Amino acid sequence: MEATSAAGGFKVHAETVTVQTEQRVELVDLTERIMSYARATGIREGLGHIWSMHTTCAVFINEAQHALHADIKSFLEQMVARDAEWLHNDPDHSDCDRFNADSHLRAMLLGHHLTLQVTSGEIVLGQWQRILIAELDGPRARTLRVQVMGI
Amino acid sequence: MEATSAAGGFKVHAETVTVQTEQRVELVDLTERIMSYARATGIREGLGHIWSMHTTCAVFINEAQHALHADIKSFLEQMVARDAEWLHNDPDHSDCDRFNADSHLRAMLLGHHLTLQVTSGEIVLGQWQRILIAELDGPRARTLRVQVMGI
Amino acid sequence: MEATSAAGGFKVHAETVTVQTEQRVELVDLTERIMSYARATGIREGLGHIWSMHTTCAVFINEAQHALHADIKSFLEQMVARDAEWLHNDPDHSDCDRFNADSHLRAMLLGHHLTLQVTSGEIVLGQWQRILIAELDGPRARTLRVQVMGI
Repeated sequence: MEATSAAGGFKVHAETVTVQTEQRVELVDLTERIMSYARATGIREGLGHIWSMHTTCAVFINEAQHALHADIKSFLEQMVARDAEWLHNDPDHSDCDRFNADSHLRAMLLGHHLTLQVTSGEIVLGQWQRILIAELDGPRARTLRVQVMGI
Repeated sequence: MEATSAAGGFKVHAETVTVQTEQRVELVDLTERIMSYARATGIREGLGHIWSMHTTCAVFINEAQHALHADIKSFLEQMVARDAEWLHNDPDHSDCDRFNADSHLRAMLLGHHLTLQVTSGEIVLGQWQRILIAELDGPRARTLRVQVMGI
Repeated sequence: MEATSAAGGFKVHAETVTVQTEQRVELVDLTERIMSYARATGIREGLGHIWSMHTTCAVFINEAQHALHADIKSFLEQMVARDAEWLHNDPDHSDCDRFNADSHLRAMLLGHHLTLQVTSGEIVLGQWQRILIAELDGPRARTLRVQVMGI
């Protein structure tokens, strides 16, 4: 799905991005895909927006480093134990059979969206900043919506 | 309060939404109210924005399920103990008599705002995603600002 | 760096803001600087956006109170121990010599950006809400990008 609308020089472009994850908990670097898309819209000044279409898949900023990504996974495990007695995982209280309360709580901490500035036709990111998604209940096919608006 | 402004097809609509909460910690599903408002603006492509006017009331995304909402409340209690020795609750250090350091810290984790895409006149949400507010120091009358901008 | 672009009444202004921090972990209130900048753009209705250019410097909302800021620092220390055995701090796994895994994880919890409404030429904030940055690996010279778009 792709959409483009314009009025008086103001434009909105939007696109669906899909990601196939391979593990239950996995970080994927989407920076290049998002930056390429933003560039292709031709919008010079405005905002970009990335939305995860899932409750258990987060979008956030951090450095792309193998050791740090291992730390992020450890940290999420420390913060939200998978095997705690969550009601969402209890058949007496929930009809969800994915046993994924931890995924919901971890995604809530990281957040489901990013808003980014576009300046001179480029997404604004610092030297070490990368646009990451956190798969928290995979492996799955995940869908994100990316929008760029401006002039 | 309601505001509408337009230039060259670009429009900005904004409105105040009020919610009366009933408990100290409570999750309220605002999805239908926000979606109806966005639809009524007539904006087809753009961004929606929801802002909590309070430090101790958060706005975030999760599934609407009774068991999961109970888990979210338990999780917030585990993360931020109400009765820890917070300086904000100590009359020697603070003039706040609400004893609500936990509310401030919990809201900080969940966040005070959401930015959402509008496509084909509808707010973009995944199948299980709901727009929730977390009352963290109620019961109170809470105010949110909702804005939709675009074309 | 400053940029201004316009089309059909729609405008985008952006500016770089720098902050020199003094401590390793420090909260700085940027509310007045951001509000003054937004006012100066002359944009009446739209969105403001604040972006930290750093992985280890967060932007978030809370009250400006000395006691509460001490609580926020304690809370971050409780949530993410500086001296845990993070791989990012281990020379066998990482070439980062700043020993700052905690800074990365704490910033991830608070977030790197804020999107704010502009109405009647003013940033929309509740009575107790302040725009704060969290220096999490200082002291350093920090850079933020501030953008206001609208009409």
